[in-house]
Amino acid sequence: MLKIFEKHINAIVPMPAADFQELTTYVEVVSLNKKEYLQELDHYSNDQYFVLQGCLRMFTLNEKGVEMTTDFALEKWWISDHKSLLQETKSLCAIQAVEKSVVIRMSKQNELKICERFPVMYAYFSAVYRKAYAAAQYRNILFKLYSKEEIYLQFSRNFPDFMQRVPQYLIASYLGLTPEYVSEIRKKSIS
Amino acid sequence: MLKIFEKHINAIVPMPAADFQELTTYVEVVSLNKKEYLQELDHYSNDQYFVLQGCLRMFTLNEKGVEMTTDFALEKWWISDHKSLLQETKSLCAIQAVEKSVVIRMSKQNELKICERFPVMYAYFSAVYRKAYAAAQYRNILFKLYSKEEIYLQFSRNFPDFMQRVPQYLIASYLGLTPEYVSEIRKKSIS
Repeated sequence: MLKIFEKHINAIVPMPAADFQELTTYVEVVSLNKKEYLQELDHYSNDQYFVLQGCLRMFTLNEKGVEMTTDFALEKWWISDHKSLLQETKSLCAIQAVEKSVVIRMSKQNELKICERFPVMYAYFSAVYRKAYAAAQYRNILFKLYSKEEIYLQFSRNFPDFMQRVPQYLIASYLGLTPEYVSEIRKKSIS
Repeated sequence: MLKIFEKHINAIVPMPAADFQELTTYVEVVSLNKKEYLQELDHYSNDQYFVLQGCLRMFTLNEKGVEMTTDFALEKWWISDHKSLLQETKSLCAIQAVEKSVVIRMSKQNELKICERFPVMYAYFSAVYRKAYAAAQYRNILFKLYSKEEIYLQFSRNFPDFMQRVPQYLIASYLGLTPEYVSEIRKKSIS
């Protein structure tokens, strides 16, 4: 299954098979059941996760105790709370498996070791972070321009597989809607 | 003034003075008057900007023609629409000087040349993009957890200089509030 990770790296930077073999000694493959946690709320983050199979989400808890999903990661996406990682502060978020998943866990210490051992990985992570930042910027623009209903419909058109895979109540918590409201939008858009 | 850029790079990665001298031949220093544009709405992005002095903002226009500020950049921050840059699509945003500013303009072609000539710059940009992504993630969490009024008050506490420098109507457009409402919050918080 590590082939997925090797392909992902090689699509961005060239990495000889022998180097990739060595690189894998710095990471850990973790299997998760549905709803299993990789990181609990209010804990320090030390790791990043790359999804080989399945789906993860990151969520925070508002003062009423309602879970608010802040990010999803499907196959070939990295997920982590970078502020917590960089500043060594407790994370406001938890990371949980949405479905049965297999992920790569890379500690920040090992990320540094990997980049020092294989400098081409700086270019890899530069591309990964830039793409993640571009997606976050774009999401921010969408949320400014469109109503939540319009965003839901755009998501449905642009990411039909994602919308099929992820439970409706999680998509609702991502968009800041109630599951009932999402259900209404859905009925309206089908009819 | 390029010293600011040299220091910023050297705080992240070591760059000999001679290398930095050569690097500067790939960038352009641009002076801007208040409200001058670096990029118009609905144009292709090709450049990134690093603020040496002053303040920039990125904004989009909603269907009612109201400007919605999506990002600010003060000294030592990079700003650009990365989705437009990466995907070569027209940007939904414009980039404008909030006050008289001096910036570095770096085209994406030259960013690549710089990184190939000085591979240490991959590590620099990796750190820059990661920090920008961390800030965007955190902002997304704040907007999910807190009311706009609470966010305004947090901003005032955490970034007093920024709040002093940037006109109130732009902060309002960033938070999705009317200037009148910001003025009310401000009065309330002072009294």
